[in-house]
Amino acid sequence: MITNTSIRKKRFYLAFLLLFLGLHLQANLPHPTLLLTKKGVKEIKSSQKKAPLFRQTVENAKQEIDIVLTKPMEVPLPKDAGGGYTHEVHKKNYMDMLNAGLVYQITGDKKYAGYAKEMLLRYAEMYPKLGLHPVQKSNYRGKLFWQGLNECVWLVHVSQAYDCVYDYLTEAERKHIEKNLFYPMCDFIARENISAFNKIHNHGTWAVAAVGMIGYVMGDKDLTGKALYGYNKDRKGGFLSQIEQLFSPDGYFTEGPYYQRYALQPFVMFAQVVENNQPELKIFEYNDGMILKAVDVEFQLMEPDGQIFYLNDALDKTWHTAELVYALNVAYNMQPHKKDLLDIARKQNRVILSEAGLRVAKDLHKGETKPYIRKTMLLRDGAKGEDGAIAVLRAGNKDETAAVMKYTSHGLSHGHYDKLSITFYDNYHEIIKDYGAARFLNIEPKNGGHYLPENNTFAMQTVAHNTLVVDETSHFKGNIRISEKYSPEHLFFKNTDRIKVAGAEDTNAYPGTVMNRKIALISDERLEYPVLADVFTVKSEEKHQFDLPFYFMGQLISTNFEYEAHTSQRHTFGTRYGYQHLWVEAMGKTEKPAACLTFLNGNRFYSITSLVNPDTELFINRIGANDPEFNLKNNPCFILRDKNLSERTYVNIVEPHGEFNPVLEYTNAPCSNIQSVKLIENSQSKAIVEITLKSGETVKAEIGK
Amino acid sequence: MITNTSIRKKRFYLAFLLLFLGLHLQANLPHPTLLLTKKGVKEIKSSQKKAPLFRQTVENAKQEIDIVLTKPMEVPLPKDAGGGYTHEVHKKNYMDMLNAGLVYQITGDKKYAGYAKEMLLRYAEMYPKLGLHPVQKSNYRGKLFWQGLNECVWLVHVSQAYDCVYDYLTEAERKHIEKNLFYPMCDFIARENISAFNKIHNHGTWAVAAVGMIGYVMGDKDLTGKALYGYNKDRKGGFLSQIEQLFSPDGYFTEGPYYQRYALQPFVMFAQVVENNQPELKIFEYNDGMILKAVDVEFQLMEPDGQIFYLNDALDKTWHTAELVYALNVAYNMQPHKKDLLDIARKQNRVILSEAGLRVAKDLHKGETKPYIRKTMLLRDGAKGEDGAIAVLRAGNKDETAAVMKYTSHGLSHGHYDKLSITFYDNYHEIIKDYGAARFLNIEPKNGGHYLPENNTFAMQTVAHNTLVVDETSHFKGNIRISEKYSPEHLFFKNTDRIKVAGAEDTNAYPGTVMNRKIALISDERLEYPVLADVFTVKSEEKHQFDLPFYFMGQLISTNFEYEAHTSQRHTFGTRYGYQHLWVEAMGKTEKPAACLTFLNGNRFYSITSLVNPDTELFINRIGANDPEFNLKNNPCFILRDKNLSERTYVNIVEPHGEFNPVLEYTNAPCSNIQSVKLIENSQSKAIVEITLKSGETVKAEIGK
Repeated sequence: MITNTSIRKKRFYLAFLLLFLGLHLQANLPHPTLLLTKKGVKEIKSSQKKAPLFRQTVENAKQEIDIVLTKPMEVPLPKDAGGGYTHEVHKKNYMDMLNAGLVYQITGDKKYAGYAKEMLLRYAEMYPKLGLHPVQKSNYRGKLFWQGLNECVWLVHVSQAYDCVYDYLTEAERKHIEKNLFYPMCDFIARENISAFNKIHNHGTWAVAAVGMIGYVMGDKDLTGKALYGYNKDRKGGFLSQIEQLFSPDGYFTEGPYYQRYALQPFVMFAQVVENNQPELKIFEYNDGMILKAVDVEFQLMEPDGQIFYLNDALDKTWHTAELVYALNVAYNMQPHKKDLLDIARKQNRVILSEAGLRVAKDLHKGETKPYIRKTMLLRDGAKGEDGAIAVLRAGNKDETAAVMKYTSHGLSHGHYDKLSITFYDNYHEIIKDYGAARFLNIEPKNGGHYLPENNTFAMQTVAHNTLVVDETSHFKGNIRISEKYSPEHLFFKNTDRIKVAGAEDTNAYPGTVMNRKIALISDERLEYPVLADVFTVKSEEKHQFDLPFYFMGQLISTNFEYEAHTSQRHTFGTRYGYQHLWVEAMGKTEKPAACLTFLNGNRFYSITSLVNPDTELFINRIGANDPEFNLKNNPCFILRDKNLSERTYVNIVEPHGEFNPVLEYTNAPCSNIQSVKLIENSQSKAIVEITLKSGETVKAEIGK
Repeated sequence: MITNTSIRKKRFYLAFLLLFLGLHLQANLPHPTLLLTKKGVKEIKSSQKKAPLFRQTVENAKQEIDIVLTKPMEVPLPKDAGGGYTHEVHKKNYMDMLNAGLVYQITGDKKYAGYAKEMLLRYAEMYPKLGLHPVQKSNYRGKLFWQGLNECVWLVHVSQAYDCVYDYLTEAERKHIEKNLFYPMCDFIARENISAFNKIHNHGTWAVAAVGMIGYVMGDKDLTGKALYGYNKDRKGGFLSQIEQLFSPDGYFTEGPYYQRYALQPFVMFAQVVENNQPELKIFEYNDGMILKAVDVEFQLMEPDGQIFYLNDALDKTWHTAELVYALNVAYNMQPHKKDLLDIARKQNRVILSEAGLRVAKDLHKGETKPYIRKTMLLRDGAKGEDGAIAVLRAGNKDETAAVMKYTSHGLSHGHYDKLSITFYDNYHEIIKDYGAARFLNIEPKNGGHYLPENNTFAMQTVAHNTLVVDETSHFKGNIRISEKYSPEHLFFKNTDRIKVAGAEDTNAYPGTVMNRKIALISDERLEYPVLADVFTVKSEEKHQFDLPFYFMGQLISTNFEYEAHTSQRHTFGTRYGYQHLWVEAMGKTEKPAACLTFLNGNRFYSITSLVNPDTELFINRIGANDPEFNLKNNPCFILRDKNLSERTYVNIVEPHGEFNPVLEYTNAPCSNIQSVKLIENSQSKAIVEITLKSGETVKAEIGK
């Protein structure tokens, strides 16, 4: 809501003018002053010998920038969208300027400062002449980039580069650059796009960080005030409001861990900058230490090799990304007692070039690392923690067996229709997987590197997830406006040595239908490995068709049921809500009480044992139909289908077993160890499942409070 | 051919009797005397401190056998086929006995010897009562195992175990075990199965090694003589004849590298035993040092991560397998100047428990390792080197770019109909792949762990390979009797810094049709990475349909041609010769002179640029049709099809390019760097290809002598 625009515009220009005239007053500010500080540079010079990883990172940065220095500098007129040529050049330029600035500060070699200066002048030359970016795909266009967001990211980096070479520049050069580049850019980001700047959204965080960081460099308190308290400094926007509202009380970001990673970077960077410049604000303690809590949560929402959980729109990203190096370094710098963070730092194998990175590298070198422990945890969603949750159950074994149930709110525009869906991990592999997003990030020939059409038509749809679909229709009929109003009810969560459980219930995804899922990760000495017990009850006033998919990863080894395979002709599973993207490869039924499907992943076998009715249809499907551009991954899927029922309780056991050892040429237990499964009791908040093993032993699991 | 069976039988029993009576004469033989010797044990005891990897391997063996010692011993009546219970127990037993024997020798702890003794006595108890194995799937049945081959492997291991505990046993125990177990087993292997014993085949090698090794332990020169010179010691069989005939002059084993690995083990083991007991035979120098040459070739026929090339019937096996640890250790022990072998030993990370293993571990610890270099090499096939060849072209770059062309003879029963087929590797990935075998080794639910029906119906067929299929019919109509009579003609092979080339021609796979393939691996500074240029000319007296497949590994990114995708219905590519196992996913054509298909593998893009006619049909297919048991891997395939032609020259460039970096979030060159391709000249033994790059530069390649 913009009111009194003309007054504000005047105020902004007034501030600008005062600042511009009074620049010499700021000349005695110490520089650098952002993530890397003057004090930090001293420390680095005196003690980097004791921090080999820091030196290695400096060396790498130097090697990179040395190559850049041999090539002609390019500052092209903006033309291309994400992944395109000018887009990539402007991205590379901000990294190059930042590298040059940092390497200048650490080595003192002026050729690096000279490079950054030259490029800053080139941008200062071009920027005033730019209109909006010619690509009109975004509501929030930038000038250098097709998205305003990228413009902010550019400034977050370039403000640091400028900070590093500030003292190297003459006053006249600084004036010139600030007048032609940074002030117009701040005006564009903060005033012209005030709704994005003031929005409580991760795009807003980048905007305030950008304006705040260049504000600190230029010593402009008006800009830093806007950044912290909102454009009108009324707390209706700005960094502090974002810290209050963007994460749940447990530190979960509603879009999911893939975007939490991205959202964290401006929080972490800007918080460190605020801490360095206004320590009295105690920014890291703000809102119950929210920023550090959110960093902690992010590293927990990963597979043991560092892959971020595929939930909502998520791609292949690990803790190796730059933003998570920043997050880890800053978090450790603020909490140097958390020695387990060094375990991740060791795997990241690089640090940021600041005091924080120096500290990480020094302590790594001192051998202070402790093993990083992934924990069983409940993460509530919503600013008040009332919008459902993600339950992460971890067996705590060396194979890192884990199960995740997601029953959060929709998750904004990157959310999926995936209420109560589960995933399962074991032995450093994804066993029951969420598809994540359909996108080839930055690969131009794939829709310009953007989300692909199949992200909407398949990846977001309910049938792409390991949860129930009623009548071949996605939750909330795939309508985000409705979906974002609701989240499932949290029922219970318990963490004991032997069993970890979680339960939740949804009554909104399909009006008139109650879906209740209770899961348990059971570690029992009678079991070869921990197993996942999954009790999914659906009840409705009317009769429906139910589909419960399991996207299993691996090569199908055997089934205990007969099926008809579609071996020479193939058809799709349906026509809409993602069904059109599934090929039916086979369909079977069984008179046995439980169907069992076994597959091989890595060197271990996995069986899904499912209680079935004689009429339950057992589909073996594969992703890939209606995909003319070959955009989808052709993963297989096991789907249980029941027709014409008003109630059904699905009991599934996901069980790792045996070993396939091609090196030593032996195989153990390629068939399930389970003889039978019994549901002894089932109410809203409690189920009791009894698993009888082929050894004759039984394992009982109480899944409830 | 058995003649005079009764005389031989008498002779055998006579020898047996003499031996049995004269056993006490042998009592002063030093034991152990096979791979591990009495002298070796002394060395180990005095110097294993300087060989940490050796000590680690001993420790691992000890830990394993310590667990075994806590469990009840089982020597079950033979019942199951490969992968089944009794099969696995008897396999495990020979390993356990061998481990127990070795650990006893190294530690001196008698409990290990006691365990081996006890089990030997149990076998001596059972063996005389056994008839042929109840499973009747093999022409060469064993007694403990369904295949006689496994029986020999058992004896190769158990003879070593017996050797280790020989001095621990009383004379009476030895007599009992030899009389009831080893002599009957030798009689069974050598006399009752004389044709297998005398056959020049790797099964024969296991047989002679088994009989020879137990012969040395028992000091029975008749047995060792039979092993070395054939059952009748007339050199019509036996170890020396096998060394002469089983490998080509270049050290290539006709079944291909997967089976070369397996075939090598008895050669390597028994040769070391012969060397230790009859050094005067200079067995490692025999036939131009054939055994060591064959070991050398085996390690060259691998991908850089140690995966053996998928050629003929081949599965996932690497240099980590036991047989290749033996091969490497023995080879290094005989050639300790080859320090590059230590590089592989380091990756194997274990050694054999003998002098050879000790030496490897010591020299590793001394830091003598040199980098292992994979070489460009031509390996002729056939005992005289006249039956075609395998050409391995390696760019010698850090990405280990390599191309392989196979134009060998059929390769016995594990051979495929794959004349002139190629594979391509880059950046530690398989880029253009040979399917290898359809089999899940040792996985009981998959056809008992044996070869699957799809091995015959798909994996062996020509269309499963990267080579030309005429009229949808496999080479030699898939008839092994005909195929094994012929091999392609070698035309040329040349290895220069800039370009490595090979060429071959086949005139027999399709009577009346000449197929000529010339390939080049080109490293040129104008190219981003080395590329493969492939010129395949087919000429016939009559008009035919030609299909040239490329099994590309990766996600399809883009094509420069339009196609019709089969998005909601799918049909098979054909009905026989493997075509029934391919789904047609899309078919296109183009008026452009060259079709281009780009895919992503790892963090690099690859394009196949193919000169085409406007009528050339461009298929994008996928393996997996008519596969009701889900036995096949669903890899994609690009196939060029021309109909109704009597002559066609296919020119294809396989080109790595660009980079996809999801961590640093950038992408370079996702499209081919090639503007156009021209075939300037093409004769039987020479082609000239000109590649014009988008940069405007041209790269010319002369593919000939």
